[in-house]
Amino acid sequence: MSATVVDGNAQGAALRARVAEAVRGLRARGVTPGLAVVLVGEDPASRVYVKNKSARTVEAGMRSFDHKLPADASEAEILDLVRRLNADEAVDGILVQLPLPPHIAPAKVLLAIDPAKDVDGFHPVNAGRLATGQKALVPCTPLGCVILAKSVHPSLAGMEAVVVGRSNIVGKPVAQLLLAESCTVTIAHSRTRDLPAVCRRADLLVAAVGRPEMIRGGWIKPGATVIDVGINRVPNPAAGDGKTKLVGDVAFAEAAEVAGAITPVPGGVGPMTIACLLRNTLQAACDRRSLPVPEMPA
Amino acid sequence: MSATVVDGNAQGAALRARVAEAVRGLRARGVTPGLAVVLVGEDPASRVYVKNKSARTVEAGMRSFDHKLPADASEAEILDLVRRLNADEAVDGILVQLPLPPHIAPAKVLLAIDPAKDVDGFHPVNAGRLATGQKALVPCTPLGCVILAKSVHPSLAGMEAVVVGRSNIVGKPVAQLLLAESCTVTIAHSRTRDLPAVCRRADLLVAAVGRPEMIRGGWIKPGATVIDVGINRVPNPAAGDGKTKLVGDVAFAEAAEVAGAITPVPGGVGPMTIACLLRNTLQAACDRRSLPVPEMPA
Repeated sequence: MSATVVDGNAQGAALRARVAEAVRGLRARGVTPGLAVVLVGEDPASRVYVKNKSARTVEAGMRSFDHKLPADASEAEILDLVRRLNADEAVDGILVQLPLPPHIAPAKVLLAIDPAKDVDGFHPVNAGRLATGQKALVPCTPLGCVILAKSVHPSLAGMEAVVVGRSNIVGKPVAQLLLAESCTVTIAHSRTRDLPAVCRRADLLVAAVGRPEMIRGGWIKPGATVIDVGINRVPNPAAGDGKTKLVGDVAFAEAAEVAGAITPVPGGVGPMTIACLLRNTLQAACDRRSLPVPEMPA
Repeated sequence: MSATVVDGNAQGAALRARVAEAVRGLRARGVTPGLAVVLVGEDPASRVYVKNKSARTVEAGMRSFDHKLPADASEAEILDLVRRLNADEAVDGILVQLPLPPHIAPAKVLLAIDPAKDVDGFHPVNAGRLATGQKALVPCTPLGCVILAKSVHPSLAGMEAVVVGRSNIVGKPVAQLLLAESCTVTIAHSRTRDLPAVCRRADLLVAAVGRPEMIRGGWIKPGATVIDVGINRVPNPAAGDGKTKLVGDVAFAEAAEVAGAITPVPGGVGPMTIACLLRNTLQAACDRRSLPVPEMPA
């Protein structure tokens, strides 16, 4: 293996420590940021995420408000809760954990969140501000990708970046962030004709397709920086019958032979997502009070 | 010359005719769409545009409301006018002609327009809807580019598209529209390292940089479709002392030797912009009344 492995655990912890330091400063001025998380239903993965978010929020010195609704909660109930959180002065950030149960329209719920408290950055107003280069609350995973890329290359300007995947949650916002960093940005996807060739153009390759180990070592330009957003659970018969493991969208062992730097799965982009959520909550808390936002990566 | 010249005048006229036909249908149901244009100050080019828009609006059977304010109008006056137009039931579309005088913040004025009447598609909510693949009012010039491209290739899916320029008004939205058409999209700009090489990758090249004839024939992939958004006035000594002419961002004569299809300047993208403005006004008039929007190109 030749590539430097980018340590998302360490960088996530460092970012959370910076947020905590800034929160201490705010609390000395009488301001304690608060994050409200809404969880509808019993999805086990979502419950783990929410528990983890809550613990990290409190660790950073902020208030955590967990709101759990049954899986059969009506859309009206959820919208009513969001409206109360919008009006609650103690709440700076509101996150509605996705996926929602199938009878709830996520777009309608996300649209109900006050854009100033939209710490997931999924409200159309924040998407539009990001798309037009205005100050915005930016989706957490894309922000984490850019922070990790900038830890390898402090300036990304002029780099050829290829983003594989065009989801609203990762692919499109990460492309916009990389464009703002003055990369030459290509967005590739399932309809791209020669995906290996397009990937081989990339000085900076961001994989966000959700297909285990789809991107092979031969697709990587020698020396490239590879950011792997995928978190896919796959069978791991070597560990025993019925065992599983997590892998990314990139075939790590192959890619690490070619790349200059690569994020592992787990321990790469994942830990940055929660750290960026805390960063966004801090930003929202400051912006809502017209306080200066402490300087943070990316 | 080998390239097919894409006739924007003819296609713009055809689109305006389709809008006019749909407007006749709406009027038979008692609905007459209305477009309000706000012009602040005496910029001669803006006055010509506004006069032209007004004439085309009336030709299409819609109502045209021109509001002219002096160059020293205050921001409060302009915002007050926008609010009155938002509340006016006869007004389906509101366009504030840019540029505004330097003492006015354009972002603040654009933000005041009801997104449902934002026929220029510059409000963050419409930018966000476009960026996240939701139904939106889409900026007129980018929409015109895509309609012209699809007149050459009815399906753009899988094509390598390169957009040169990353403005909020053209480059970024055209990239989003081409992504929605399933092109593999690259956005290039002033920081791109080897722009000629990036352009040579393009099956579909959109030039939106505002620099006269910057893109040379040797930058074009043989057979490519070239959409030239630039409208640059340059000296034309051959026509006499002090004479000028309009040229695009592409060196037309050279590029036409290599390209498969190319839009001229003038007579390419330009005439599509007003046609798309009328199309957007029709769409807004239907959407505001929950009427079906008549089928239109792109």
